[in-house]
Amino acid sequence: MFTSDTQIRVRYAETDQMDVVYHGNYAPYFEVGRVEAIRALGFRYKDMEAGGVIMPVVEWTAKFLRPAHYDDLLTVRTILQEMPVDHRIVFHQEVYNEKGKLLTVGRVLLYFMAAETMEKTVMPEPLRQALEKYFVNEK
Amino acid sequence: MFTSDTQIRVRYAETDQMDVVYHGNYAPYFEVGRVEAIRALGFRYKDMEAGGVIMPVVEWTAKFLRPAHYDDLLTVRTILQEMPVDHRIVFHQEVYNEKGKLLTVGRVLLYFMAAETMEKTVMPEPLRQALEKYFVNEK
Amino acid sequence: MFTSDTQIRVRYAETDQMDVVYHGNYAPYFEVGRVEAIRALGFRYKDMEAGGVIMPVVEWTAKFLRPAHYDDLLTVRTILQEMPVDHRIVFHQEVYNEKGKLLTVGRVLLYFMAAETMEKTVMPEPLRQALEKYFVNEK
Amino acid sequence: MFTSDTQIRVRYAETDQMDVVYHGNYAPYFEVGRVEAIRALGFRYKDMEAGGVIMPVVEWTAKFLRPAHYDDLLTVRTILQEMPVDHRIVFHQEVYNEKGKLLTVGRVLLYFMAAETMEKTVMPEPLRQALEKYFVNEK
Repeated sequence: MFTSDTQIRVRYAETDQMDVVYHGNYAPYFEVGRVEAIRALGFRYKDMEAGGVIMPVVEWTAKFLRPAHYDDLLTVRTILQEMPVDHRIVFHQEVYNEKGKLLTVGRVLLYFMAAETMEKTVMPEPLRQALEKYFVNEK
Repeated sequence: MFTSDTQIRVRYAETDQMDVVYHGNYAPYFEVGRVEAIRALGFRYKDMEAGGVIMPVVEWTAKFLRPAHYDDLLTVRTILQEMPVDHRIVFHQEVYNEKGKLLTVGRVLLYFMAAETMEKTVMPEPLRQALEKYFVNEK
Repeated sequence: MFTSDTQIRVRYAETDQMDVVYHGNYAPYFEVGRVEAIRALGFRYKDMEAGGVIMPVVEWTAKFLRPAHYDDLLTVRTILQEMPVDHRIVFHQEVYNEKGKLLTVGRVLLYFMAAETMEKTVMPEPLRQALEKYFVNEK
Repeated sequence: MFTSDTQIRVRYAETDQMDVVYHGNYAPYFEVGRVEAIRALGFRYKDMEAGGVIMPVVEWTAKFLRPAHYDDLLTVRTILQEMPVDHRIVFHQEVYNEKGKLLTVGRVLLYFMAAETMEKTVMPEPLRQALEKYFVNEK
């Protein structure tokens, strides 16, 4: 299992008139979590794209358990429970507030795609090798 | 079953550098669909809120089958497959492009909540009566 | 002078906890106004981009006189006071609510740029011809 | 003069199909800069709002000199050139990329308003005192 935490400060722009973070803003929050998880592995999603592999979101699910509020310092936890198989990669994502309360849980399925052909492809090999360290004891 | 269609023109702001609508923007698209569905029943979500009943999103799921592009005129279809029970209401939502291709399907669970106490409540009675007409033959 | 009006319904996502439209959302509102102004002339900004001419925003100014609220049906007025000169085009933009109250006034300067070289260019000739009709009596 | 720097990593959601940060996203970027400037003074905008003073944006201007790109680590500089007078406060804001290039310059005018009455008010006294230290030698 590979887990990465990153922090996000809630912006005023992200609140709505219910005085909470608008639910649609968890999409960029989760995105930030995934991007920082990849950076923690020594890679950048940006470079992957420059190298011709893009990762469109194919399924996105979240349960909103408790609201986040303006100026909250959130922790976005991004979890890979298993090594990606073929063109699929599944992230589990959790958002906590400063008191450690779980606010939101989600699951995001993305595909590895070749940008030029828009055909499904697999995770770039260097990223796979970096990830495998986290799963080796689990075999 | 109650179904409502509404149209949304994709804004430049809603695209990302993959040249498609960023997946997080389907949250406001679905929101517009639900709000217009309620308006089609003769009510306004705005008035419901002013009357003390809010509808926070509790679960949000979507599958992104095909991308939407800048300036596409999308049709958002909002479907109530069954009458809401207790404090829960489930919308099924679909997004089509101008060629009639299904781009995105989703399911959104919301709760009826009393704004003042933040306790669960039920659908306001006038809205329930307006909706029941669509389900009467299905009993 | 060329003027074009278009309507925008305020989305919940666009409000903030001050119970008004977040000021940053006037950028997409103005964008919609400009895009619909071009459409009213018989052109599509989308086609201009496909034809290799893009229009990045270079300066953006607004004064927020009165707030817009959730579910308001706004009118965005987009005004070209003079024919574009060289690579520059200046739009004046106004936002009104349903009562006809002026909420926001703005001014947006964009450049015509060749997408491939990122060099300044001029307004595509067919769009210029369509526009000139609106300025001919003013000479 | 009081100056505060804060960093923002560009999100994928904030890009558009021109492969740059959509201009409207500088509104939340500037907002983050102002909020962190206030925090650097030992205060939180959040507490000011809880204390009944809100700061709506009244005028917003920016010049976009160079584009920001996905994953750029931007520095938002927030500058108070003079002590606020009466109900008005003017921030100058600058955005730099990692190479130190100036991307965007802006000016934002906000009012201090009493949330309850929506009447103009003045900067809360403790914040004024914290700020005055930065202007004392300039008198």
